[in-house]
Amino acid sequence: MNLKIEAARAALQEVRSGMTLGLGTGSTAAELVKLLGDALRDGTLRDIRCTCTSEQTAEQARSLAIPIFDLPQVVPIDLAIDGADEIDAALRLIKGRGGALLREKIVEQQARRFIVIADESKVVDRLGAGVLPVEVTPFALEVLQRRFAGMALSPVLRMRDGAPRITDEGHRILDITVPPDRDIADVVAGIREHAGVVETGFFPTEATEAIIAGETGIRRMRRS
Amino acid sequence: MNLKIEAARAALQEVRSGMTLGLGTGSTAAELVKLLGDALRDGTLRDIRCTCTSEQTAEQARSLAIPIFDLPQVVPIDLAIDGADEIDAALRLIKGRGGALLREKIVEQQARRFIVIADESKVVDRLGAGVLPVEVTPFALEVLQRRFAGMALSPVLRMRDGAPRITDEGHRILDITVPPDRDIADVVAGIREHAGVVETGFFPTEATEAIIAGETGIRRMRRS
Repeated sequence: MNLKIEAARAALQEVRSGMTLGLGTGSTAAELVKLLGDALRDGTLRDIRCTCTSEQTAEQARSLAIPIFDLPQVVPIDLAIDGADEIDAALRLIKGRGGALLREKIVEQQARRFIVIADESKVVDRLGAGVLPVEVTPFALEVLQRRFAGMALSPVLRMRDGAPRITDEGHRILDITVPPDRDIADVVAGIREHAGVVETGFFPTEATEAIIAGETGIRRMRRS
Repeated sequence: MNLKIEAARAALQEVRSGMTLGLGTGSTAAELVKLLGDALRDGTLRDIRCTCTSEQTAEQARSLAIPIFDLPQVVPIDLAIDGADEIDAALRLIKGRGGALLREKIVEQQARRFIVIADESKVVDRLGAGVLPVEVTPFALEVLQRRFAGMALSPVLRMRDGAPRITDEGHRILDITVPPDRDIADVVAGIREHAGVVETGFFPTEATEAIIAGETGIRRMRRS
């Protein structure tokens, strides 16, 4: 059983004809986009207008003939659906290990509802099991890397094909480690005081719901 | 009497041979850069290593044969000197009407001392007499402009030569108005919750000193 497909299938049930949608980025979001393409092709859904959180997702959507628009043409968005790297019990997220955190957060902040879809492995007791991506401007990259190292955050420059990864917005990514004895919200507040930090992969309030697929079925979380 | 030159002249007295310097942007900073060029040429100062807060300042510095370096090569900076658009009694600033706010803040946060130079007209009772620049990513520009309009902040897209102004880091600028009944720190906190906001021209803690030139002489302010 592919749990990512199960979560995506459950999320598709929330989509109604005539809606505007924000489409996420990553392997789980890609399953949703594929199912959406099927539903539009077979006529189960119609009159859907979508916006994408990355060039990568836009390419997939175009290949499936899903109607995509620039963000300003579809706001406010009825429903955004996206994956996450980590989810805690308060529906706080770490996102952006796929590198699309900035556009994801911009789009998802414009959505009335934002459903996170994931398999059970993404649910954690404490956010920060893996790295937290921090998007920075090129001009500040080196000095911020040193500064974060001095803050014991072990920053690592994200690479791709042997060169620093350049985001869709032209920035760079430093992957930092949240020290085990510190709360992620405090760490992020400290990071954000530094000019040159554009955004982090910490999404404290954006998600309104989550659909989690496990071996024993689907469960839902809702912001209280 | 040119007050900008008077303030720049007083600031130059704080520069010692062997220092690393951060050079600001704008008409007052340009006077300092000019005087620095003179002092290096006539041998009053030597062995100075500078970094610039804009392409514009770098161009001026190069034309005066001032030795300039990339930021990572000169941190920590001994002394940054820059102008400001507004200064309050707590040494909080509004900067960036020249468009260089992001690199200015990045450089000035790396400086041990940051002296603001200005004429008396820049000292205000309440920050927000003029606009507050907000630097945003192109992807978020239109939705943030609408959002800030909804927050009664009257955002206006900064233009130059008939097209949106593009900053040195590739972003756009929305000039907002701080409502007269609200504190700028609260307004900025609300703005910064929006993904796509890269930086604002509010500098709450960066300046350590100010040199203010008036018709009756120079006065100094220091962070208490």
